[in-house]
Amino acid sequence: MKNNMESVSDKNYIEQVSVECVILGYQDRQLRVLVPKLAFKGDFWGLPGGFVYQDEDTDDAARRILYERTGIKDVYLEQFQVMGKANRNSREFLDRMIGQNSDLFSDPLAEGQRSRMDYDWFTRRFISIGYYALVDMNQVIPQKTDLDVSIEWYPIGELPPMIMDHNQIVANALATLRLTIDQKLNAFNLLPETFTMQEIQDLYEAIFEKRFAQNNFPKRILRLNVLDRLEKKYTGAANKAPYLYRFDRARSSQLPTEDLFTE
Amino acid sequence: MKNNMESVSDKNYIEQVSVECVILGYQDRQLRVLVPKLAFKGDFWGLPGGFVYQDEDTDDAARRILYERTGIKDVYLEQFQVMGKANRNSREFLDRMIGQNSDLFSDPLAEGQRSRMDYDWFTRRFISIGYYALVDMNQVIPQKTDLDVSIEWYPIGELPPMIMDHNQIVANALATLRLTIDQKLNAFNLLPETFTMQEIQDLYEAIFEKRFAQNNFPKRILRLNVLDRLEKKYTGAANKAPYLYRFDRARSSQLPTEDLFTE
Repeated sequence: MKNNMESVSDKNYIEQVSVECVILGYQDRQLRVLVPKLAFKGDFWGLPGGFVYQDEDTDDAARRILYERTGIKDVYLEQFQVMGKANRNSREFLDRMIGQNSDLFSDPLAEGQRSRMDYDWFTRRFISIGYYALVDMNQVIPQKTDLDVSIEWYPIGELPPMIMDHNQIVANALATLRLTIDQKLNAFNLLPETFTMQEIQDLYEAIFEKRFAQNNFPKRILRLNVLDRLEKKYTGAANKAPYLYRFDRARSSQLPTEDLFTE
Repeated sequence: MKNNMESVSDKNYIEQVSVECVILGYQDRQLRVLVPKLAFKGDFWGLPGGFVYQDEDTDDAARRILYERTGIKDVYLEQFQVMGKANRNSREFLDRMIGQNSDLFSDPLAEGQRSRMDYDWFTRRFISIGYYALVDMNQVIPQKTDLDVSIEWYPIGELPPMIMDHNQIVANALATLRLTIDQKLNAFNLLPETFTMQEIQDLYEAIFEKRFAQNNFPKRILRLNVLDRLEKKYTGAANKAPYLYRFDRARSSQLPTEDLFTE
């Protein structure tokens, strides 16, 4: 996206198809979403997204977009929903944006690029493929592209108002995570390499926005048989030090649902 | 699709996007899939599918395709996967098909329709949106369209070899059904209005291809609190007559996951 003079319609993208990525992290007992503020005058936020090259798998398009924004390649990624309403287009958002930009130079679509053709290209109906990614926030240094003025982690309950249906897409990603968390055991991707049982419980409580019984949760998790118990975590008070655990990807990959979404 | 002379490229479809439908039924303790045999010389089977009009929701496109093949409108339908590989196209299948058709009159794409433009239109890369439907087979009279020579219910374990990735799409639909059956309780859509507990258990055993303990399964199902118990089923041996049950859609719609895939 370096060359602003190049028209989007020359880029050999599939038309009317886009990819939107909900990048989920976890910190301070809160689920967080990585949201760029868009490089237009006015306050516009939107999920990291983009288009699919003709010779690119849709999954690879999502990976490319994730890599641009997070700097990491090995990311847990899942395609979870298609936004396919006939009236789904960015016309209202683009008109509002252009209306607020008397100085179009701050507009990355300006500078000769926003030909009538590009406006038409962008404002057609788009079928959008929703992905969610689960990342360890410690591994990520958020990257803004030249389409962003900034990029930040927002608590999932305090998201800015985003363009189009992007807030709803986040809600649906969270619902999907909750729906399949027990079978996919994918929440561990939000934690660092090692963690205590309390940290797992905190994470699950953040995801479900409810408390789990302290005497029941560890049993339930350990019964899954996907955690390796390591040494105790040094806390200064040795007799109360909790054990550290590590998620065993190999064991979890023997779960029957593992290869569900491979083609 | 009545007017074979009309070119597909004139139909105002979104390009390079298709919809494929896995229509699942249940009979004689077997899950079944409704599969048309395509109206080309040679043996070609493929899932009911089609394209999306510019002014049509993708969900409505799937409903339209389902209605064409089943004659029913009120169908449990779920979008479950996008097939998005860059090399996904029907070129090999179409070339094979055309090669076997010296008499192109039996070919619904012939009769003036298969212009060079249409061949190019059909053989581009397609991103396909996969839906699965769960139907009560008693309600369905399978309908062939003028694209089919016949249409039949096949046991899911005895499907014919279908074009492209369609057999894999069925496998993924089944995996999705298994993955979310407990939260969505959607399997009841495969049964008639009323059924015995044994019939539910038979259905679940067909879906999971395994047996469930006879003394445990009814407890597990009743605990969900979504069944109304009705009168006993008359069998002639009154003292052994099993109760009939009915799935209570209203109760199940209070489950937290109900509105997951609404936009």
